Amino acid sequence: MHFKTIHDVHHCFDHDLKPVEIINSGDTRRFDILDASGGLITRDSKAEILTRLPMDALNPVCGPLFIEDAEPGDVIEIELLDFEPGGWGWTGIIPGFGLLAEEFTKPWLKISEYDNESVYFYDDIVIPFRPFAGTIGLAPAEPGSHSIVPPRVCGGNLDIRDLVKGSKLYLPVQVTGALLSIGDTHACQGDGEVCGTAVETRMAATATISLHKGDSIPAPMFDMPAVASDNHNEGYIVTTGVGPDLMEGAKNAVRFMIDRLKKKAGMDEELAYALCSVAGQLKISEIVDQPNWVVSFYIPKSIFKSHSLKAI
Amino acid sequence: MHFKTIHDVHHCFDHDLKPVEIINSGDTRRFDILDASGGLITRDSKAEILTRLPMDALNPVCGPLFIEDAEPGDVIEIELLDFEPGGWGWTGIIPGFGLLAEEFTKPWLKISEYDNESVYFYDDIVIPFRPFAGTIGLAPAEPGSHSIVPPRVCGGNLDIRDLVKGSKLYLPVQVTGALLSIGDTHACQGDGEVCGTAVETRMAATATISLHKGDSIPAPMFDMPAVASDNHNEGYIVTTGVGPDLMEGAKNAVRFMIDRLKKKAGMDEELAYALCSVAGQLKISEIVDQPNWVVSFYIPKSIFKSHSLKAI
Repeated sequence: MHFKTIHDVHHCFDHDLKPVEIINSGDTRRFDILDASGGLITRDSKAEILTRLPMDALNPVCGPLFIEDAEPGDVIEIELLDFEPGGWGWTGIIPGFGLLAEEFTKPWLKISEYDNESVYFYDDIVIPFRPFAGTIGLAPAEPGSHSIVPPRVCGGNLDIRDLVKGSKLYLPVQVTGALLSIGDTHACQGDGEVCGTAVETRMAATATISLHKGDSIPAPMFDMPAVASDNHNEGYIVTTGVGPDLMEGAKNAVRFMIDRLKKKAGMDEELAYALCSVAGQLKISEIVDQPNWVVSFYIPKSIFKSHSLKAI
Repeated sequence: MHFKTIHDVHHCFDHDLKPVEIINSGDTRRFDILDASGGLITRDSKAEILTRLPMDALNPVCGPLFIEDAEPGDVIEIELLDFEPGGWGWTGIIPGFGLLAEEFTKPWLKISEYDNESVYFYDDIVIPFRPFAGTIGLAPAEPGSHSIVPPRVCGGNLDIRDLVKGSKLYLPVQVTGALLSIGDTHACQGDGEVCGTAVETRMAATATISLHKGDSIPAPMFDMPAVASDNHNEGYIVTTGVGPDLMEGAKNAVRFMIDRLKKKAGMDEELAYALCSVAGQLKISEIVDQPNWVVSFYIPKSIFKSHSLKAI
C-alpha cells in the first residue's frame, strides 16, 4: 500500500507554523525523516564535525500536520506501522551534551552499518535492529518558538526506545489542530540514551493518526506490543548507583558500567559510553527505601559475540 | 542436596554484631527468611495492623555470616540457587511510606496466595511468581547500628526484582569478614516497589557465597540470567512523567497509571497503587534532552486475564 509522503521539515515547535497538510482522523502518512544532523553527517564524516554542527538545524522534524477537529483537551493517537531502514547510522559524543558531559569533553563519532535484523556496532558487538522515532510531538500551547531538544508533556523529543512498530502513542492536544511532527529516527537505542545519541539514521516512518475526543491525559502514554528482540536469552550484566539522588545514581550506575567495560573488556571509554547509550537500559529498581534509591543499568549479554566480552 | 540452614535473625546492620557462623569461600547455606513484618502479619490480619508494626523489628535479616579471609576492598559474590515458596504473601500501604505517601495516608492490606507459577493478586489479575530476596547486604564500615530500610553501596535493602534464582550478586566488602545477611523475600515485585511493599512472604533461600580478592567495585553489581517469566507476550501499557526532576517524573508516571486503572478498569486507587508496586516497571527512557527527562512506567498486559482490563 502506498501512502502520501511528508517531506517538509522544520526546526522548532511553534503553534504559529503553517501546517503542511490538513488531515482527518484515521489518515495514514509516510514521513521521510532525516537523521538528527539533518544530513550533515555522512559515512565519511570525522568526529570534529560534531563541534561545528549548527545547533538551530539539529533534530529536524517532518510536519506539522493539522488534524481536523482536534481541540485542546483531546488526545491524538499515533499508531506506528512501519520503519524503512536507511542502511547506516551514526553515534556521537557531542561536547557539552550527554549524561556524563563533564567527563567526556572531546568529540567522538562512530558510523555503524545495519540491516533489517542487526546493527553492526563494533567487532563482536551486534545489537538487534529496533527502529523507532525519537521525536513525536504536538505543538505546545505556549506561544513562540520552542527548541526541539527537550520533550514536553505534549510529546516531542521523548527518545522512548519502545515506540517501535506496532506501538500506539497517545499525546494530549494543546492547540487547535494539534500540529503533529515526527523526526529523529534511530536504528537502536538504550533506555536513557545516556551519551546523548543513539544510532542516528535517516528512515521513512509510516503512521496512522487518529483523534480521540474527550479522553484527556496529562502526558504521553503508549501501548507497546511484544517485541521479539527483547528476548535477551543470555541475561544481563547490571551495575547500580545507590544513594539519595536519582540523577547521581543514574550517573554512578553508568560510570560503573563504563569502568567495567574498560577494565574487563579492554574497551576505550568513549566506545563503552556510546555502547551504554545504544544498548543499555536504565531502570529505577527501588524508589521507596528512604533515603536511598537504587538506579540500575543493564547491558544484555547477547550483544557480545565473543565470550571474553561477556565476563565483565 | 541438603545445606546447613541459618535461622538467626537480626534487625540492624552493625559490624559489631557477633557472626552466627564463620564460613569459607564457596560454602552454600540455606537461609530461613521471615517476611518483612517478622511474622506479625498473618493470613487473617486487617489493615490496621500496619499502623502499629514495631519499626525496629521490621525487615529482619538472617545472619550475619563471617567469610574467612574477606577484607575491605574485596568482593563477595552471592549466587542465588533456590527459593522455596511460602504459599502466601501480603502487600500493604503503610502510612508515611511509599512513593506517593502524601496521597495515600490510610493503611491498606492485601493477602495473596501463590504457587510455583503464579501470584493470584486479584480477580482476573495473575502475576508471574518471580521470587527474590529484597535484602542482601554486608556490614558497613561506619561504626554503630544502621537501619535495615535504606540500601547502601555495600548492599542491604536493594529491592532489585531481578535478583532471581541463577543471579550472582557482587558486593564490596567494607569490614573484615564481610558479615553477610539476607532477608525480605518477595514472591513478586515491580521495578521501583512504588507503594513500598511487594508480595511480602516467608521463604527459604539457598545461596553460595564466594570471595573474590582484589576486584574492587564501588557499589553492587549483578549478573542476571534470562528469565522465562519476562516474556510478556502481550506487550505493555505505559505512562510517562516528563520534566526536569526524575523523582517528580517517577511520581507523575505512577500517578498517571493509577488514574488510568481507576478510570478505565474501575479499580480502587489503593489496589491500583499496590498493583503498580508488585507488577509495574519504572524506567528512565531519556536522561539527556535537557532540561526535561522522561520516566516511564510499564504494566505488562499479560497479567490481566479479562479483556476489559487490558484497555486502559
